[in-house]
Amino acid sequence: MTCVQEETREVSVPSVDGLAAEQITDEDDGGADGSQRRRQIIDAAREVFARDGFASARIREISAVGGVTDAMIYRKFRSKEELFGAVLDEPLGEFTRAIQGLAAHGLGTSPQERYRLSVEAHEKLLAVFRDIAPLLGVALFYDSDAGRIFYRDHMLPVITAVAESLRAVMTARQLQVIDPMLLTTALVGIYLAFSTAAYDKRIAESDHAESEIITRAVAFGLFETLLS
Amino acid sequence: MTCVQEETREVSVPSVDGLAAEQITDEDDGGADGSQRRRQIIDAAREVFARDGFASARIREISAVGGVTDAMIYRKFRSKEELFGAVLDEPLGEFTRAIQGLAAHGLGTSPQERYRLSVEAHEKLLAVFRDIAPLLGVALFYDSDAGRIFYRDHMLPVITAVAESLRAVMTARQLQVIDPMLLTTALVGIYLAFSTAAYDKRIAESDHAESEIITRAVAFGLFETLLS
Repeated sequence: MTCVQEETREVSVPSVDGLAAEQITDEDDGGADGSQRRRQIIDAAREVFARDGFASARIREISAVGGVTDAMIYRKFRSKEELFGAVLDEPLGEFTRAIQGLAAHGLGTSPQERYRLSVEAHEKLLAVFRDIAPLLGVALFYDSDAGRIFYRDHMLPVITAVAESLRAVMTARQLQVIDPMLLTTALVGIYLAFSTAAYDKRIAESDHAESEIITRAVAFGLFETLLS
Repeated sequence: MTCVQEETREVSVPSVDGLAAEQITDEDDGGADGSQRRRQIIDAAREVFARDGFASARIREISAVGGVTDAMIYRKFRSKEELFGAVLDEPLGEFTRAIQGLAAHGLGTSPQERYRLSVEAHEKLLAVFRDIAPLLGVALFYDSDAGRIFYRDHMLPVITAVAESLRAVMTARQLQVIDPMLLTTALVGIYLAFSTAAYDKRIAESDHAESEIITRAVAFGLFETLLS
């Protein structure tokens, strides 16, 4: 996970010829199409990364679990880092859509209904985060240069997309308490912290109870007594 | 950073003989006392870990920067993991005292004064967190077993201490919005997220501006529009 390696990735975008070659290879290779193979590889990689961690995960193990060849993995992903990013993009996309859904429902319903929808949405979001928190932590902090690149390439698009949908709701309601980018960043931090807190078994692992807490915190503040 | 290695540390506490031997060694070794040498080693380790990351940091480099011998480091710290934990304990202690100070000031002053004190305290806390966030991230996520142990041994005491001081304030004011342990956990998550967001230069790095945001979020909620 070096800076140089990842930076290179930005420069050497696949040429049209390269893409065509890949498609032909996929068609030649047993009939499964490119996206199906990609799916198999990502599912296997998620399993192996979650079990072995980033550093110890072996491409050979991922190919064995996924029922593909090492060469196939390297045709789809330039490096272990790129595969790792791809594994996280899917749950991060899920996270984005769930928050966007929450923001959409935030418009035009009653306060009671908004509360219920919020708890439901946070419950889903927490469940997503519990799965990815350890891998996300590794991606952000394993190496500081790689972490910066991961943040820019994988986290920032998520935060920006969520922030834009929240901005729309906030603008519609003519109330903008804090910058939506920072709001979203804070929310991601809370999810990460709550997921990490499950390291300690004394903290309840009930997604429903915690999602109620997040809803209350988001709506009423973390510490209502501070200014009152 | 293996689970077994760290677990062993709990069992093999230094014997009285071991401690006596260490003191004699320190006196023989140039006149600096044990805590001074410990200080030199921790300062050097902080510098090297911050620059090289956990995996790449070399004890040889830490001893060179600190002006001590490798053997001296191994007399004070059983492993690189233990030294890493010691580096983080100091800023985490600073964080604990700053929040406890905030909680203490939260009693008996006017809302305006509480707001000002809160912004001041969060500003200090953010500054502390910006320094340690990358190392903290590594400690929590580099390896999932080691992360659990680090959480239990280094983070949980911080969160518990802070939560107890907040609990006292909340009880005195007869208002407990959310469990103080979860409140503190959420705050730590926000700090971690804001510190990590500085990976992206587009987010302002003004501790004052962000500490105002945290104060508002803590007091009024992250998203005031949600339930209103």
